[in-house]
Amino acid sequence: MSLIVQKFGGSSVADAASVKRVARRIVDTKAAGHDVVVVVSAMGDTTDELLDLAEQVSPNPPGRELDMLLTAGERISMAVLAMAIHDLGGQARSYTGSQAGLITDSAHGAARIIDVTPSRITEALSEGAIPIVAGFQGVAQDTKDITTLGRGGSDTTAVALAVALGADVCEIYTDVDGVFTADPRVVPKASQVRYITYEEMLELAAVGAKVLHLRCVEYARRFDLPIHVRSSFSDREGTLVISEAAIAARRTSEGTTMEQPIISGVAADLNDAKVTVVGVPDRPGEAAAIFGALASAGINIDMIVQNVSAANTGRTDVTFTCPQGSTAKATAALESVQSTVGFESLLVDAEIAKVSLVGAGMRSNPGVSATFFSALAAAGVNVEMISTSEIRISIVTRTSSAHDAVRAVHTAFGLDADGEAVVYGGTGR
Amino acid sequence: MSLIVQKFGGSSVADAASVKRVARRIVDTKAAGHDVVVVVSAMGDTTDELLDLAEQVSPNPPGRELDMLLTAGERISMAVLAMAIHDLGGQARSYTGSQAGLITDSAHGAARIIDVTPSRITEALSEGAIPIVAGFQGVAQDTKDITTLGRGGSDTTAVALAVALGADVCEIYTDVDGVFTADPRVVPKASQVRYITYEEMLELAAVGAKVLHLRCVEYARRFDLPIHVRSSFSDREGTLVISEAAIAARRTSEGTTMEQPIISGVAADLNDAKVTVVGVPDRPGEAAAIFGALASAGINIDMIVQNVSAANTGRTDVTFTCPQGSTAKATAALESVQSTVGFESLLVDAEIAKVSLVGAGMRSNPGVSATFFSALAAAGVNVEMISTSEIRISIVTRTSSAHDAVRAVHTAFGLDADGEAVVYGGTGR
Repeated sequence: MSLIVQKFGGSSVADAASVKRVARRIVDTKAAGHDVVVVVSAMGDTTDELLDLAEQVSPNPPGRELDMLLTAGERISMAVLAMAIHDLGGQARSYTGSQAGLITDSAHGAARIIDVTPSRITEALSEGAIPIVAGFQGVAQDTKDITTLGRGGSDTTAVALAVALGADVCEIYTDVDGVFTADPRVVPKASQVRYITYEEMLELAAVGAKVLHLRCVEYARRFDLPIHVRSSFSDREGTLVISEAAIAARRTSEGTTMEQPIISGVAADLNDAKVTVVGVPDRPGEAAAIFGALASAGINIDMIVQNVSAANTGRTDVTFTCPQGSTAKATAALESVQSTVGFESLLVDAEIAKVSLVGAGMRSNPGVSATFFSALAAAGVNVEMISTSEIRISIVTRTSSAHDAVRAVHTAFGLDADGEAVVYGGTGR
Repeated sequence: MSLIVQKFGGSSVADAASVKRVARRIVDTKAAGHDVVVVVSAMGDTTDELLDLAEQVSPNPPGRELDMLLTAGERISMAVLAMAIHDLGGQARSYTGSQAGLITDSAHGAARIIDVTPSRITEALSEGAIPIVAGFQGVAQDTKDITTLGRGGSDTTAVALAVALGADVCEIYTDVDGVFTADPRVVPKASQVRYITYEEMLELAAVGAKVLHLRCVEYARRFDLPIHVRSSFSDREGTLVISEAAIAARRTSEGTTMEQPIISGVAADLNDAKVTVVGVPDRPGEAAAIFGALASAGINIDMIVQNVSAANTGRTDVTFTCPQGSTAKATAALESVQSTVGFESLLVDAEIAKVSLVGAGMRSNPGVSATFFSALAAAGVNVEMISTSEIRISIVTRTSSAHDAVRAVHTAFGLDADGEAVVYGGTGR
């Protein structure tokens, strides 16, 4: 008998029919002899509807009240899910984040979990019940006010609760069968990955793969908690996100050690923009002034390239990428230091895409870069910027080339599957 | 400076525009130098929509989960109202029933308040903030589960909180200007009552007047808390529900002692049915057997009439009234004792109406019954049953005669106003 935490996103509980389907799965898991704790997001578009309502009343609502409002969403979904389980003969009990012991700081809208004290959940489990916990929410330790965890919050609730309860696995149900070697909408022959390391998953999350949020993967890695990403629309095994050692152990026991792929996935991120600071005087301290101004403005910088100084001009160009939504703030921050830095002008280019190759195996396989760049060249993809980590290579190219690039690289690394992947619907929070 | 509890029903906060209007009123009250605590119901049809959702998932949801679901309604309205007040420069903070210290028993769906410990509310007041409290909900003392108070719950929350905080008055905002001498939709010349005793208000609530729920009036009477019933759509003074002594004191200080009306109101209740148990053997213990069976089935009996035994038959008829929704249960309960009681048959008649005259002044005015019955006779209203209390006379007649009866009695007691009353819209919970 295992203790399993199952998390269902908004698309998995979008309407009464979906709620009943999810309830059936939970009851079946319980009937198979497991203890089950469920974490659920708000139904379908509930959160957006509540945000609309807030906007009608106030252009800039206080964070405390916005959190109070948004947490009504999970309150509805968890109660309804508990009813559906009850209707199937299961003993479900719903708990708010506060009741489940999700203790956070008081940063409304983006609270951090600082403790998990799930005594009511363990009590319910010991009585044979199925606790249904509201995702995305907690209670502030100091003010006792209701908080929300921000983006990816429900996944983080599930992982944090699984860690606190000593669960064997945290199952994250979504609308795809698991983690794929590429987005199946871009690469129809993308294949499902069976195992992936926390580190690879973090890199994929950082470069645009939407399956899991960075924060919940970080939390799981810290406590070595297995995450099972799978579809709420099918019974297939999904993707296990575990440590490299755990993967090795599993492959050894399965006798499939030799099959370990070098590359876990190829991803494209179309949400970044490229900003070039033109004509920066080529003297010490200029880069520090530029990136200091951007940091003060809270801009998340991703890649940075500085060209060699053009002959005799004494000036150079500094190029960086940041989220498209941050370019207005970035240019404002840079213009405020233009006179002191003495650069000539700014160029903003939103028509870029970042294409990334992620794989723990590339550490020990020196030929990866060569294969990557020759695949891109053969596909006619122009490389504008390059950045690498130990287990990732990313390039920047034109938005229009992004999908060609992903497909070419996917094929070049032998990732194409025989059949086509199945895609089901929207995504939850 | 006073401490005022203001309660707004669902129709007063039906949409963003209404919420803003209510927010303005609250901010104005605060600006006038008062401390304000607000109690709010769910917006418009929210509760019905949540009930629909529950029904789609389960035909018989557990009370604990239904309460969890329904309390999402006030969570939304209170957060949105707090945002609207904040937008007008006020410092509002929303609190759930649990956070506000509304401690109840664990009777889900119809919980009774057993304690009110509003330490967070007094703390907010001492910091100059405006606490917004969710009506209708509390937390069970033993299980710590979320509860709802059932019908009239938000009014009861407001009164209980006002008592616990030592408020000067509890203002109940509704869609009419106050308590009227009759339903203005039936009697266009109905006039607003300025003062009414708790006892009269209880009688009026019991005989079909919908303005205040019995339970909240009982609570206010027990602690002698003034209730001010007024419209959220106008600034007019409404109706004060206070003790008889308080009314006398106010009239004396106003020099209007002589004007005290004998009658406070005339009401019709069309929701009862009449059940006649035909041919009951005329011997001791039969009535006890009949009403014992009805009590065991949980039927609320209102009026009872037993005819004199018909000559030589040794049998009599027993007639009672109960809510129309209870007649199926009542006949089933009676049929289960038919063989032991030995009655002949049952007649159910839903086409009846109860018309009631309520007034503390009738105690000292012996002519009231005579005026009442002659007005009914002149209007051609047939009287089928009669029941009286110290401050009320009720009769049962045909449904088709009810409104004629109300109008005739209203005129006979000189209650008709010069102008017509204003009616605004729906009702809250």
